[in-house]
Order: sequence, then C-alpha cells, then structure tokens
Amino acid sequence: MFSKILIANRGEIALRIIRACKEMGIATVAVYSEADVDSLHVHMADEAICIGPPSPMKSYLNMKAIISAAVVTGADAIHPGYGFLSENSKMVDICNMHGIKFIGPKKEHIERMGNKSEARKTMIEAGVPVVPGSEGSTTDSKEALEIAKSIGFPVMVKASSGGGGRGMRIVREESEFENSFNMAKSESKTAFDDDSMYVEKFIENPRHIEFQILADEYGNVIHLGERDCSLQRRNQKVIEEAPCSAITQDLRERMGEAALKAARSVNYMSAGTIEFLLDIHGNFYFIEMNTRIQVEHPVTEMVTGVDLIKEQINIAYGNPMKLRQEDIVLRGHAIECRINAENPEHNFRPSPGTINTLLVPGGYGTRIESHIYSGYTIPSNYDSMIGKVIVWGDDRDEAIKRMIRALDEFKITGIDTNIDFQMEILNNEKFIENSIDTSFIEKEILNG
Amino acid sequence: MFSKILIANRGEIALRIIRACKEMGIATVAVYSEADVDSLHVHMADEAICIGPPSPMKSYLNMKAIISAAVVTGADAIHPGYGFLSENSKMVDICNMHGIKFIGPKKEHIERMGNKSEARKTMIEAGVPVVPGSEGSTTDSKEALEIAKSIGFPVMVKASSGGGGRGMRIVREESEFENSFNMAKSESKTAFDDDSMYVEKFIENPRHIEFQILADEYGNVIHLGERDCSLQRRNQKVIEEAPCSAITQDLRERMGEAALKAARSVNYMSAGTIEFLLDIHGNFYFIEMNTRIQVEHPVTEMVTGVDLIKEQINIAYGNPMKLRQEDIVLRGHAIECRINAENPEHNFRPSPGTINTLLVPGGYGTRIESHIYSGYTIPSNYDSMIGKVIVWGDDRDEAIKRMIRALDEFKITGIDTNIDFQMEILNNEKFIENSIDTSFIEKEILNG
Repeated sequence: MFSKILIANRGEIALRIIRACKEMGIATVAVYSEADVDSLHVHMADEAICIGPPSPMKSYLNMKAIISAAVVTGADAIHPGYGFLSENSKMVDICNMHGIKFIGPKKEHIERMGNKSEARKTMIEAGVPVVPGSEGSTTDSKEALEIAKSIGFPVMVKASSGGGGRGMRIVREESEFENSFNMAKSESKTAFDDDSMYVEKFIENPRHIEFQILADEYGNVIHLGERDCSLQRRNQKVIEEAPCSAITQDLRERMGEAALKAARSVNYMSAGTIEFLLDIHGNFYFIEMNTRIQVEHPVTEMVTGVDLIKEQINIAYGNPMKLRQEDIVLRGHAIECRINAENPEHNFRPSPGTINTLLVPGGYGTRIESHIYSGYTIPSNYDSMIGKVIVWGDDRDEAIKRMIRALDEFKITGIDTNIDFQMEILNNEKFIENSIDTSFIEKEILNG
Repeated sequence: MFSKILIANRGEIALRIIRACKEMGIATVAVYSEADVDSLHVHMADEAICIGPPSPMKSYLNMKAIISAAVVTGADAIHPGYGFLSENSKMVDICNMHGIKFIGPKKEHIERMGNKSEARKTMIEAGVPVVPGSEGSTTDSKEALEIAKSIGFPVMVKASSGGGGRGMRIVREESEFENSFNMAKSESKTAFDDDSMYVEKFIENPRHIEFQILADEYGNVIHLGERDCSLQRRNQKVIEEAPCSAITQDLRERMGEAALKAARSVNYMSAGTIEFLLDIHGNFYFIEMNTRIQVEHPVTEMVTGVDLIKEQINIAYGNPMKLRQEDIVLRGHAIECRINAENPEHNFRPSPGTINTLLVPGGYGTRIESHIYSGYTIPSNYDSMIGKVIVWGDDRDEAIKRMIRALDEFKITGIDTNIDFQMEILNNEKFIENSIDTSFIEKEILNG
C-alpha cells in the first residue's frame, strides 16, 4: 500500500481523506495556503506544507508547488479531492512524470469525459441514451425545424457558443419554431458573434439522478446505486439523497446498466459518477460523467456501507477491487445537507468570519463532515461550504425527520449560515411527498 | 402515539431519548436536579422541570417529584433511561396509578428478573442453561462437596450473604475443598453473621455475551444478535462490541434461541437484555436479564439498523412490533468506547470540572452520544461517564482502526478523561486478535 499520501485540497474533503488514510495506516501530508494556516486539515495530517498565498491559482491550483511538496515529503500518491485539480489531466501527467500516483482516473478518462461533445459521442456509440438533439450545428431554420420534428416538441434551441442562458429558447410547438429560432440566432450573433445553432430535446421538470461507479484497472466495474440531486440552486446541489425513492427497482436496474455501459465504454477506472436527467415518464438521458469523488458521496456510503475513499485509494494502488455488483445491497435512506457560510436573506452572499459558539449535532444516524471548530475563522477566499450533515434513516420519512432534528441541534454563532434555508426545504410539503425536480428550489422555495 | 414523554434521566441517555422523540413528533419534558441546570438535555427538551437538589435520592430517584412533573406538564408517558428508576417496580406502579405509561416492561418482569434466585429458577424451568450450582444453601462441607463433585471442578464456594469478594473461594481440586469451604464459611460468619453457603461452577476466562431482545405485548419476541461486553473494570463495562466475532453462526443461533426462550418464559415486553457467560469451550450460561435499555445499545443499532429507543416507545404505546426475526440482518461491526471524566493514572478517580476546548470526532462510521459541550461543567454528583463514541466498520479490524482514529481526534481540555486508557486497550495486540475475556483489563492492561 502507499506509505504516504498528499492531499491536494482543503476543508471537509481534506479531512475526509486524511481520516481514511489514518484508518488505512497511511501517513498524510496536508498542503495549505496562507489563508488556511489554522485549518483543521493542517492539524490533523502528519505533515503540512504551505504552498502559497490565499489565491487558489497560487496555492491549491499551483501544480508546481503541490508536486514539490509531494517530492520533498516523499509522498507516493496525491489525492486531489473534488474541485481544484481533481479533473485536470495535466496534473495527472505531472504526477506520472514524477512517479507519483494520482488517485483518480487516467488522463484519457478526464480528457474524454471533460469534453462534452466527445463524451456525448462516446455515449451514443456505447448505446447509452443521451438527450436527443442535432449531431452538428446549423444556421438554417428549415433544417433545424426538421430536426426538431424528428426529436419531438418541446425542444430547446441553443447557440453553439452560448452560455448563461443567452441564445437559448424553449419551443413548445412547431408554429413557434421559426420565430424562436431566429430570435435566438440573432441574440447569439450579437452576443457571441456566432450564429450557429443546435436543437435538443427539452426535458421538462427532470430529476437529476446520478450513479456512483467504482472501477479498477482489471475491468471490474460496479455501480453503487443512485443519488437524487435534484435540489439545486443555480446548478449548485443543496440537498442530496440516496437512493431516489421515486424510481422503481426496474428503472434503477436499467439506469445502473446504462451507467456501467458508460464506464465500460472508456475502460474507466477509479470512482466516478454518471449523471442523468430523468423525465416524468421514466426516460433518462446521460448528461455528463464526473471523473472524481463528489461532495455528495457520503449518502452512497451510508446506504451501501462502502467507504468510497478507501476504495479509490485501493484502486489507485493497483489492488483488484474485492466488491462485486451482487455485494451492493442498499439499506435505508440517506440525506445530505450542505452547510454554507452564506446569507440566504441577502441573495446567499458569502458570510466569512469567526465562529464563536459551535454545537454540532450527534446521535444515531447522524454523520458530520466538517473542518470547522469553535474559534475558527472562515477565510473569504474559497467556497462557502463549511460542512455537510448526513443522516441515515430506515426510510426517506425517517431520514427527513432525523435531518430536521439534527439541523435543529446545530448551533453556530458568529457567521450566517443556510441552516434555516435547509430547514425550509425539509419542512416543505412537496419535498416531503418527494414531488421534486431540478426547478424545485427556484419555484417552491425562492419564489414559493 | 404518545403526545408527550417525560424523560426521567440525565446525561447522554436523556439526549438519546429526546432525539428519538423529536424524530417521532413527540413533545419532551426534561427533569433535572439543581446540579444539572446547564445540562444539554434541559436545553434540548421542549419543557424542563427542576425536581430537586443534586443528590440523586432527592431528584432523579425522587418518584414523587418526577410523577408530579409528569402530571403538571401533561406527559402521557415516562422513559426512565438506564440506572436511576429504570428497574424499580414501584415506579411502574406509581405510573400506572397516575395513568402514565412507563416505557419499559411490566412490574412483574422487573420483579421476577430483579430477584437473582427467582430469575435462575425461571430459567431452569424454561430450559435455559444457567451456571450449574446448588439449588439451596448449606452449612455442611460434606453435602457441599457432593454438590461440587456433581458439578465438576473448578467450583466457586460462595457465602449466601456474600458480596464484594468476601466469603468466596475458587476450588480447583477435591482435596482442597473442605479447607476452602470452611475458610469461606468462617469468613462469612464473621463478616455477615451468616454461614450458609452455596456452590457454583467456576467459569474460567469467560466472555460476557449478551443478547438484545425486543418484545411486544402481543407475543412477538425477537433478538437482535449479541454484544460482546467482556471488557470490564470492576464489573463496569468499558468497551462493547457487536457482533462477537469469536462465535460461530451456529453458536449465535443457539444462544439467540436461548435468549428468546428466556424472554418468552416470562411473557416479556419492551427492550431487554439476556446476559450470558460464554466459556472457552462454547458453553454458555444465563447470568441475568436487564429489563431496561442499556448503555451499550448503540452497537446493536449500528449493525442491525434498528432504532431501539423508537421500538421501545412504539411497544410501550401498544403498537404491535413490525420487525420479525428474519428482518434482523447483521451488517459490519460496531464498537463503543465509554468516555469517562476520570483519571486512570490515579485509580480512576472522578474528574469533574469545566470543559474548556472541545473537539468532537466526526466522519464516516462515527457516532457520538454525549451531553457535553465547550464551557459545560461536569457536576461531581453523578456517574463519571460523559459520553460514548461508537464506530461502525465493515469488519472488526476496520472498526478498531476507525475507533483509534476517532479517539485520536477527540480533544477535551479542562478535565481528565480515560481516552488514553481506551487507546491502550485498542492498541493491545491481544485485543486486536480478539483474545479477550472478562479478566482482560485487569490482567493485560492494569497489571500487564
């Protein structure tokens, strides 16, 4: 096994990885920016090295400094966590050059899945359903209409160069098509100086369902069931659950098979996530693959009993995976709430500062992943997430009640948090009934 | 369901029960002594009533004050936790008189099982193996020797009125018997003014194995597997595990059957524990039944996924139990370490005082049951236990490593604790190999 792992990250995920290493008997090296001197990951690791000033570009994204830290400390592997360098194929290259194992997939997996159109092509070839749409782009409304008709309404017309909602139109009927297409096209021309467009099926009120994958380098690929991550605000997940209690066992198996197909099609290795949109009719469409561990991985751990970080480390070391698909048995229901230092009353503006009193929830079925402590000053340089509360319950109903109980116990003074906002969701009737989709927070909570 | 439950206890178990009630939508009433004004259970309950001065006799054992608190607040049930009034049949009577449900077994269960010789007789009748021994007492060494020979050596001669190790002798050979018997007898005469003696099989190096039982008033009785509670100091449990990884599935089933028989023989209801001694040859002997929830119940919850407090409440309300024996599937391994405010270097003398800094362990598989917080002053009036750390792992080996990791994270300043003492056990080679019995702590740790 690796003798020493450097954790190229900060915050709760750095702690998560350090804990797994400690339990595996692997020494740990923390790296930290000048803003993170007092961070818990610095104290908990066996060694800690400062890699630069607060700016992420100069520290947690500074490959040279991180590799130097690994070389100097004699680390034989680097765990990138999520974000930062976790999906940077150049980082994999540099690790390889220095004989240091990157705990994640191979360079080609990151590159192939990081490129949206490449990933889409790969999935189509593998027979994994993708959101139906035009293969290439066009500027011709007649051609686009033919595509739209073959896909079936409603469709989305999208500027090839688009982003941030510009150059986009939902078209619900054939009669509106030409008009909408031309408006989006001219918007795109003005905004991006490019009027090439494509057409895609518009998935109404979808759920975001993702499957956790584990794969080793010997061709063993398993999935660990799904997570429902429909509750998002501005594409940021807010609450995640496992399993999705709105899908049938049959659908779970079909989606799981598709996820396995997706992973196998690129000979994937390490932990990864296949993300789907699921429409109200039970149709599902691949949207992307994340080639890293995810923030929401604990909910899968709680229902499967599998420690995903340890598996990742074992796989990276080259050990064949012991788990087989039939070993994965889901038990109960898990929910994760992301706790952010932010003020939902003021457009979720970040709320860095010093934590005075802190009382963390405990008890049965309650798991805390957090790097905060009483007296800790949250720096303003990074993501506002300060921890995660994960609960396990016998079923979704018990898990919701347990989460409400746990968040009610959580006392943090000195900063603003989104705990009340999370409580509003947890107590929402439609949430309790599991009538959720990706627009839920926007429609029911923010404008409800 | 009950609308309001009064919790007639303090500390971590009061919190445990309050949390379960909150998740069930039941209002809670805390009672507290003047020493516990700042205790967390007082803050966390919906209502709190002071029931008297610090002395347990005047507060937590003060039935009149507790019943009054229940009547005044309109509580329809009382949960006694463990210790204090939990095995007091008079308390059950008084609750019944006031139309308040006692969350526990019936009066006759407490009385029958609380009386050692009555319990022993009941078990013999039910066909549950007990420690072989004389049925009545005797003062005659010849008669006693005949009994000893029929049991087989080694035996223990014990004063009927004995206690605290006085009037007791282990006799390994027939030739030593008369001498030892007479010495013990005269010791007993001097100490207790009673020279009646009995003879019992001496179980060498036993494990303490106990089975968790749940039973409702409709005759549904299940067991939830066993706990290994062999690690004790002066008959106080220190570390508990579930399951016992030293027993075979066959033995587990036979012991489980015996435990069910024991519970059925008295038409038991509520949560209860059947305690056995297990010798190195796989023979097991009933020693006693605890007719309450126990300190170590969380390890069973971690491996079965069953919330024992909620089940207790449901059963007390009169709901038929939904669980059947076949629903109980053990997953993984759980360990609990009791955290005490005491100083193992100075003969475990209690260490009450104010907690300054507090950093509680977190992460995957880690559960904390504790009422302490930063700034909390531990009163000197009660038990020194300030919390429990419970871990879950895929197997015993992972659970041990996780517990070491968790205790390593646990930082408490201002008082002494037994955390280093626990660490010594967890790192002991024989403990890791699971070569443990009830004398382990005495032999290997304290005199090792």
